[in-house]
Amino acid sequence: MFVSSYTLREIADYLNAELIGDAGLIITGIAGLVAAQSDDISFLANKAYQHQLDDTAAGAVILRESEATLFSGSKLVVADPYLSYARLSRWFDKALEVAPGIHPTAVIDPNARIGEGVSIGPHAVIGKGVFIGDDVVVGAGTVIGDGCTVGENTRFAANVTLYHSVIVGKGCRFHSSCVIGADGFGFAPDQNAGGWCKIHQLGGVVIGNGVEIGASTTVDRGALDDTVIEDGVIIDDQVHIAHNCVIGANTAIAANCGFAGSTKVGRNCTFAGAVGVVGHIDIADNVHVTGMTMVSKSIPEPGSYSSGTSAVTTRLWRKNAVRFNQLNELAQRVRKLETDSKPSDA
Amino acid sequence: MFVSSYTLREIADYLNAELIGDAGLIITGIAGLVAAQSDDISFLANKAYQHQLDDTAAGAVILRESEATLFSGSKLVVADPYLSYARLSRWFDKALEVAPGIHPTAVIDPNARIGEGVSIGPHAVIGKGVFIGDDVVVGAGTVIGDGCTVGENTRFAANVTLYHSVIVGKGCRFHSSCVIGADGFGFAPDQNAGGWCKIHQLGGVVIGNGVEIGASTTVDRGALDDTVIEDGVIIDDQVHIAHNCVIGANTAIAANCGFAGSTKVGRNCTFAGAVGVVGHIDIADNVHVTGMTMVSKSIPEPGSYSSGTSAVTTRLWRKNAVRFNQLNELAQRVRKLETDSKPSDA
Amino acid sequence: MFVSSYTLREIADYLNAELIGDAGLIITGIAGLVAAQSDDISFLANKAYQHQLDDTAAGAVILRESEATLFSGSKLVVADPYLSYARLSRWFDKALEVAPGIHPTAVIDPNARIGEGVSIGPHAVIGKGVFIGDDVVVGAGTVIGDGCTVGENTRFAANVTLYHSVIVGKGCRFHSSCVIGADGFGFAPDQNAGGWCKIHQLGGVVIGNGVEIGASTTVDRGALDDTVIEDGVIIDDQVHIAHNCVIGANTAIAANCGFAGSTKVGRNCTFAGAVGVVGHIDIADNVHVTGMTMVSKSIPEPGSYSSGTSAVTTRLWRKNAVRFNQLNELAQRVRKLETDSKPSDA
Repeated sequence: MFVSSYTLREIADYLNAELIGDAGLIITGIAGLVAAQSDDISFLANKAYQHQLDDTAAGAVILRESEATLFSGSKLVVADPYLSYARLSRWFDKALEVAPGIHPTAVIDPNARIGEGVSIGPHAVIGKGVFIGDDVVVGAGTVIGDGCTVGENTRFAANVTLYHSVIVGKGCRFHSSCVIGADGFGFAPDQNAGGWCKIHQLGGVVIGNGVEIGASTTVDRGALDDTVIEDGVIIDDQVHIAHNCVIGANTAIAANCGFAGSTKVGRNCTFAGAVGVVGHIDIADNVHVTGMTMVSKSIPEPGSYSSGTSAVTTRLWRKNAVRFNQLNELAQRVRKLETDSKPSDA
Repeated sequence: MFVSSYTLREIADYLNAELIGDAGLIITGIAGLVAAQSDDISFLANKAYQHQLDDTAAGAVILRESEATLFSGSKLVVADPYLSYARLSRWFDKALEVAPGIHPTAVIDPNARIGEGVSIGPHAVIGKGVFIGDDVVVGAGTVIGDGCTVGENTRFAANVTLYHSVIVGKGCRFHSSCVIGADGFGFAPDQNAGGWCKIHQLGGVVIGNGVEIGASTTVDRGALDDTVIEDGVIIDDQVHIAHNCVIGANTAIAANCGFAGSTKVGRNCTFAGAVGVVGHIDIADNVHVTGMTMVSKSIPEPGSYSSGTSAVTTRLWRKNAVRFNQLNELAQRVRKLETDSKPSDA
Repeated sequence: MFVSSYTLREIADYLNAELIGDAGLIITGIAGLVAAQSDDISFLANKAYQHQLDDTAAGAVILRESEATLFSGSKLVVADPYLSYARLSRWFDKALEVAPGIHPTAVIDPNARIGEGVSIGPHAVIGKGVFIGDDVVVGAGTVIGDGCTVGENTRFAANVTLYHSVIVGKGCRFHSSCVIGADGFGFAPDQNAGGWCKIHQLGGVVIGNGVEIGASTTVDRGALDDTVIEDGVIIDDQVHIAHNCVIGANTAIAANCGFAGSTKVGRNCTFAGAVGVVGHIDIADNVHVTGMTMVSKSIPEPGSYSSGTSAVTTRLWRKNAVRFNQLNELAQRVRKLETDSKPSDA
């Protein structure tokens, strides 16, 4: 089995932390304050959990200077314990343990160029004209279409699909069953033939550096120009990004969101789960949208936006939902009452 | 082609049913009352379809004692015809016809342990340290990551992906393109670097016995602790279960639902399609949620819950949707009218 | 790299267009008016972009007779420039460049029948009893289950899954990670055992001609009868079609929609993104549903339908969302005010 083992001193140096306590302590894992054992390091990121310091069995705790006195054991004092935990988590991730090498069952086009230190798993397929940068990991069953370019240190889990001519930056991460570069949903109505005439999607997808794409997420290729995911964008599972969208740098998109075609999203935005965004609109930088919101027009100003209604008992909901569909009429009745109640103003 | 053929007596014995009629009748399929032919068995589960008994060509019908006289042909009398139909359906499922054996193109790590009677399809990949129980079926192209454990009689359709260290119980069923154990969506804001620092997801996924996971459904691995799907949970297609959720035993989740991180769902709950559930809340046992509801806080009491509004003509909707965004103001105007109309109380 | 090169005359003949200008002009791509270079053809489909004709560098433009005088360069005059663009896009689609032949790593059951001119990619799997028509393309890692039938000219991208006994027409297109024929979500409550008894799904899926199925879309097999997708239906990514639905010819379904079981949708309908449709209802022909609408009962008349509320600031939304759950009470208060204000009518 996988064993990671570090001294507290090594961890302190990596995190640029002040070490108070046993520098030689051996740490083999990270855990929450409640679950931690004596060879685990833990952290206090949220004041609400201060009381858990009293009973934790953690060998060491990462915390802020202002809370350092609350714990008598070995500790690492840092400015931002949550960020330190995030940075340290990398050292304990078994998924990163991949030996370089190309599995004999992988099918790699003779025209593809493969960098140094690359790992390509069983049954992976690399198309013609593909360029794979150094230290890239391609999981089992993953298919990289003709003419794709993949920057160094990017990782594809198993069963990912990239269509042809997708450009991917450095240090990205693609989860299983995600699909990049499938055809955008473009069809012209054909009155004579009846039905729809397919608009072949001739654009590509360009993905920046440090992008994460969740499992079963789909990013479609552009109709004529490219669909663009800028640097540092993080996208959860089951998200749909339609053709010709541009998602600005460092924007975070939670699971089940959908973005219709040609919408431009700014930088540093956050979308909670299952938000739907209509096509052909612009969303400013620093816009935050709460879960299940319907965004049906451009949002030119930063801030927090919402729509929808929240769960109540079905019995209560039924009555109110009926009234919703009478709301305009109700408002007109209220206006009439207001008018009637001021006869002397007439 | 696949042929299943049973006598009515064999079926009656399996269902523990009272047989009235031709015990030797050969049954080769199940069908609805309208579509059934003379070698099919059918069933009456819903009184609304009693009239279909008059014209059915079914060779035999499964029904309740109270309705037995409504059909003059061969019949099986049971307490719960719908459950009997469900139990019998298994006998006619061609998908269960899989010969044991390991396809020569499957890639199985020499360290994996494979039980008796296992079937592993073409291009499947089994990682190191994996344990596969007896009679498991692994479909073509399915990837089982390092260190996974799979209980006996579990079935994976084609192109399923399990990441590393996922624990699966007995008698489960995983549909195509589902992904179990992808990274939960965890990132810490990094003010200095700008953007996000990935929190590597060090927990696993634990799935109980008799669980069904639909096509393209994603169950993410936990951040530190595990994501847990308890025994008997049934999950439809395109559902997202985020990291560290716990889904209680026998809960049913219809398609397109999403559960954000660390939410705990009780036992015997039902979620209709496209429900969204926010993170870090608790939902009691026996909670039922109607389709497209937004659950944004804990539900401590059993019962039925809903939100949202239902389709009307776009013309009518537009007027009411505008009024929704003036609703607080409208309520204040009504209060003013009430106050004004009671001058004598002042 | 892929090069497509045509004279303007060849294009005019294909589009049945009136050619004005340089018939021998060599065209190597299609682009929008702004991005087009001198060897591109462009088009004017929307009057709002007429001004872009002034500055375009396009070698030629496709436009309507009424707008022909607005552009002095080479041009093709047609009745419907958008449809002409759609038809022409096919000539520049690199994805269509697939050489016939069966990759040596593909696993094809000896009982399968494969037509002429078929292309089967690496690691694809074709089950027993499958029939594959002429000129079909099967992408890498795609799995076609036992007993499926696929009509001529149909194309499967990489990592598609068809379960057993799925029938597909001619000229269809399936995108990656889509799953056709997974089990419908059918379970009977089992009071004695507790929990659910699986209803094995014995029906199939029948897909007509010219159907497009998006990436990560799931179409489940029927319980007893088939799930049916009629000719010319176009379905975007991440859509769920439950068991026993019937989707009428030429209906268009945008991303993230979900249709619950046994619902029948008419012809020529359009569903914008993330619409949810309840089960066991009927939707007429020519029904149009706007994004994120909840359709909870049958729609017997053609027209446009909507529900939901649109994004506003979270601050404003909170106040109004609270009022929504008091709406019935508010309406009752308004009625009381109306009654009180008409004492003389009593």
